[in-house]
Amino acid sequence: MRSLFHEELEFISDQLVQMSRLAAEALERATRSLMEADLALAEQVITDDEQIDALRRDLENRAIDVLARQQPVATDLRQLVTALRMSSDLERSGDLARHVAKLARMRYPHVAVPEDLRPVILEMSELATQMIVRAGEVVAAHDPSGAAELQSRDDVMDRLHREVFRLLLDEGTTRPTREAVDMTLLGRYYERFADHAVSVAIRVVFLVTGSWHDEQVPLSDAGRLHRAEP
Amino acid sequence: MRSLFHEELEFISDQLVQMSRLAAEALERATRSLMEADLALAEQVITDDEQIDALRRDLENRAIDVLARQQPVATDLRQLVTALRMSSDLERSGDLARHVAKLARMRYPHVAVPEDLRPVILEMSELATQMIVRAGEVVAAHDPSGAAELQSRDDVMDRLHREVFRLLLDEGTTRPTREAVDMTLLGRYYERFADHAVSVAIRVVFLVTGSWHDEQVPLSDAGRLHRAEP
Repeated sequence: MRSLFHEELEFISDQLVQMSRLAAEALERATRSLMEADLALAEQVITDDEQIDALRRDLENRAIDVLARQQPVATDLRQLVTALRMSSDLERSGDLARHVAKLARMRYPHVAVPEDLRPVILEMSELATQMIVRAGEVVAAHDPSGAAELQSRDDVMDRLHREVFRLLLDEGTTRPTREAVDMTLLGRYYERFADHAVSVAIRVVFLVTGSWHDEQVPLSDAGRLHRAEP
Repeated sequence: MRSLFHEELEFISDQLVQMSRLAAEALERATRSLMEADLALAEQVITDDEQIDALRRDLENRAIDVLARQQPVATDLRQLVTALRMSSDLERSGDLARHVAKLARMRYPHVAVPEDLRPVILEMSELATQMIVRAGEVVAAHDPSGAAELQSRDDVMDRLHREVFRLLLDEGTTRPTREAVDMTLLGRYYERFADHAVSVAIRVVFLVTGSWHDEQVPLSDAGRLHRAEP
């Protein structure tokens, strides 16, 4: 029989999975609103972000309640603190999807993304969406192998991010500054979204292996982002 | 006589203050390395970021240790969880300072910032630096009035951020795309740095007033960022 604590933990884990699905859906729809200049869809994504925020608040209150009532130690305590951090990553992913939708709204009725960048932006969006769904699966299954997989997908994301800069800086193309500004921000939104998916998966590894101390290393390696820059 | 718990909490609070000072120093130096194309200084900032990361790891281990050994409840528990979140904000601020230094390094021996943008970028840097120092003071003093002050300074930051876009999009200026890309990223780094300072201060308010549930609202209002965009 499972203890009450483990039931609560499973509920919290389910909420994390749900948050990852909502974030994936938000990003997919935000990108669609961007590519099709669909104002109603963009507005929907912006409004729906509150659902992810509410899930996060609920998860946090629940985790703190469990901490106070059940006073877990050792692995149990670490699991709860890790869940708090994951919820923070997933909530931030939702924010980034909302940023994409806001760009769509700001440029409506125009399509913000110039034609030559659409394939790479679509690819970034699909990859980021898959990554956050995968991160949710890694959480649900407590599967430490998922982190390596997500890190290698993140390398693909970095390549796509560099490709955005390559296209922007291509000397043969005359491009309005506004386009360069918009696409620079957009590229960063997808890239950061993917980073949060990797963070979530890495936290699972450290939870399972217990190497708590090193958890921050891959996360704070913000250099990876800059390596993708022009 | 103070309890052992409160002594530990005070130590953790001191570490947060120290992190905020290190982040401020990192940003000030990163901006200097950027404006003076000082490669050695940029490298220093990049290396020194490890100090902030190490402080965060130490703080987290300490907080989790206190949670496990002392099993706090109610306000005491909330204080520890809040400290964990603040350390995450401050560590991220350090990363953003490092991003600025990396841009300086990438463009060396050139000064990455074009002349017409130097005054506004300097102003953003000074404001962001002051904001994170102030956030540290707010933490140390448990001063809930600090949050309103930081939010109003953040409005100034948003105006400066809009000014960056205004200058970039000024039709009278012909500008290389690379410059537009670099300045778009740079503007976002300072703006996000300031956001983290506001987050830290807001967490203090909610800690003091006990309105834990609403803590996320101002944080996830990422719309503010986008309002500053072109």
